Amino acid sequence: MTSSFHPPQRTLMGPGPSDVSPRVLQAMARPTIGHLDPVFVAFMDSVKELLQVAFQTANPLTMPVSGPGTVGMEACFVNLVQPGDTVIVCRNGVFGGRMRENVVRCGATPVVVDDPWGRAVDPEKLERALEEHPQAKLVAFVHAETSTGARSDAQLLASIAHRHGCLVIADCVTALGGIPLKVDEWGLDAVYSGSQKCLSCPPGLSPVTFGEAAVKVITGRSTPVQSWFSDMTLIMGYWGSAQRRSYHHTAPVNALYGLHEALLILREEGLENAWARHRRHHLALKAGLEALGLAFVVPEAERLPHLNSVSIPAGVDDAKVRGRLLEEYNLEIGAGLGELAGKVWRIGLMGHSCNLTNVLRCVGALEAILESEGAPIATGVALEAARAAFATA
Amino acid sequence: MTSSFHPPQRTLMGPGPSDVSPRVLQAMARPTIGHLDPVFVAFMDSVKELLQVAFQTANPLTMPVSGPGTVGMEACFVNLVQPGDTVIVCRNGVFGGRMRENVVRCGATPVVVDDPWGRAVDPEKLERALEEHPQAKLVAFVHAETSTGARSDAQLLASIAHRHGCLVIADCVTALGGIPLKVDEWGLDAVYSGSQKCLSCPPGLSPVTFGEAAVKVITGRSTPVQSWFSDMTLIMGYWGSAQRRSYHHTAPVNALYGLHEALLILREEGLENAWARHRRHHLALKAGLEALGLAFVVPEAERLPHLNSVSIPAGVDDAKVRGRLLEEYNLEIGAGLGELAGKVWRIGLMGHSCNLTNVLRCVGALEAILESEGAPIATGVALEAARAAFATA
Repeated sequence: MTSSFHPPQRTLMGPGPSDVSPRVLQAMARPTIGHLDPVFVAFMDSVKELLQVAFQTANPLTMPVSGPGTVGMEACFVNLVQPGDTVIVCRNGVFGGRMRENVVRCGATPVVVDDPWGRAVDPEKLERALEEHPQAKLVAFVHAETSTGARSDAQLLASIAHRHGCLVIADCVTALGGIPLKVDEWGLDAVYSGSQKCLSCPPGLSPVTFGEAAVKVITGRSTPVQSWFSDMTLIMGYWGSAQRRSYHHTAPVNALYGLHEALLILREEGLENAWARHRRHHLALKAGLEALGLAFVVPEAERLPHLNSVSIPAGVDDAKVRGRLLEEYNLEIGAGLGELAGKVWRIGLMGHSCNLTNVLRCVGALEAILESEGAPIATGVALEAARAAFATA
Repeated sequence: MTSSFHPPQRTLMGPGPSDVSPRVLQAMARPTIGHLDPVFVAFMDSVKELLQVAFQTANPLTMPVSGPGTVGMEACFVNLVQPGDTVIVCRNGVFGGRMRENVVRCGATPVVVDDPWGRAVDPEKLERALEEHPQAKLVAFVHAETSTGARSDAQLLASIAHRHGCLVIADCVTALGGIPLKVDEWGLDAVYSGSQKCLSCPPGLSPVTFGEAAVKVITGRSTPVQSWFSDMTLIMGYWGSAQRRSYHHTAPVNALYGLHEALLILREEGLENAWARHRRHHLALKAGLEALGLAFVVPEAERLPHLNSVSIPAGVDDAKVRGRLLEEYNLEIGAGLGELAGKVWRIGLMGHSCNLTNVLRCVGALEAILESEGAPIATGVALEAARAAFATA
């Protein structure tokens, strides 16, 4: 590629990134200013305030980590976990497994509570693990498993952990902005998210928030954090009070312009309205997919509205269908990940991607391609089913 | 801030970020596509190829780390340093100190070779340190010290290190694109840089490159890398061959659009031409600043052309002058950092910021403000001195 890159105009209905609003893209193209410019320092405070709204928290230590969600995950673990600690990790998909990896690399001992991929974390199993491992200091779980579309009861899991004297790290990468997430009300001690899911920013930033108990652990550590970059005691001086800002690293200025605009859009809509919008369009998509004859992987009560995993019909070529969707319809849906690779499609309805046009586009395109591939689906009924479900939702 | 953020249009002549070309800003505003989209995967290869040109290397493991320069620094250290290793760290400014921090957090022993802030690393001191510490495995130094404007002889330091059987980690954050940097010819084993200096992208990406010997160390480690995110054995599968790309994290898609465009601009100009341009405008700026009566901190032979540290004249209020430059001229210059805080200004001429208009803007604005602040400077001669130096450079 020896000339400027002009990406195709896709419709992004995979597990993220989601479609980015033109408002956000425009914001990112505004002139770069210095990261220590007083105007930028004031702007950082605004980003923090908007993130506090999105997270439903008053935590002062709330900000976007300057890296993708995986860096936010690492920031939570390396700051809260010390060598020798025991950490309960609930694993019901890829990202629980990644949490376990983080625990190991912190020199701590993970106790893994496994649940089937595609199911929520079982609170009773967590309870038992905590009873068996009273020395545990932390419980880590994924609120919205991006690899499966399963939603766990973050509030309940946190209350169980707290009852056993543990702090909680919650992966809310795919939850934030899509389903109810109430950091303070639920008492989530450390939470990380991502910019490219229901916030509909480009990927590259990881909003995090740490509660008082977590901050106490961080400032009371007896060993230094193994990562200089992610050491929150240093980052606090950078994202802390605007009056005492000290240089730590160079913030990704333009990416933050985009995040700010995306958070404004979310606040304009209202969190509850955004949650309801994801729910309503999920019902329309569900009606359409089920009318085609596609089966959901996750039981209804444990399902994320905005990440819909369906089983690939027998005899259908996974990669070929996704390739045709991309080439013929400019439509991206997600492949399965880990043990679900080749078995499921993950259809996202996140943030700016979550609208009726996209629901109908996706159902219609899948119908046309699956029919032409000879898949055993019902034809001629799915679009109407989606429309009808939307009307009554 | 309850509405969209509209940053002022600054002229960025600090230590980075530098002014971003409209071409790069426009590239970043193009539609986001999926990070596993075949079109994006091919695009990643193009980014790698352009980075290889910029770094003057054929290293296959050359790519932008998804985080600011500090993350690139950390990627080099956590992958190459194992617990118990001895690492020689040359420290002649803030970033040498940060390298030392990284060594400590890897569980290794740093041997610090100190040189005065504002001077190059002394090769003889490095030689002596290597003789005294034959167990050392690595030598780390900063090619272009962003905190002082000093330039060290990366080629010579690398050859000394290699003679003693050590690999080299070089901080080329501020070097890349501004001064000669020849990774393969000089045998630099691991190099990290930043997007927001002479490449003139927004901050947030850290180009890195690892040579064959470094890759051998990484793949032969007996202990896992302490950071899951920065573990190059995992990242190799993501940024490696397009045929075998495996998910690791979600790349910052739009930031990479910007980097690609910036690397294209650099290749269009030609590396040698870019180096010459920085040199020529440095001579103009130097003539102007010296005509005002300002004194350079770094001896001429050790000076970076694109980061000019000058002593703040006695009796002048550092913060007030910088504030007035920003408010009255929309011009950002850099403050001193670390032990030079309050004592120097750092004037950058990096990438897109490096042009005659900016040289004259900066010299003229400094003259006007210093005069009105009653500083003991020469007036009425500096602009002509800068112009004359440019004409003959």
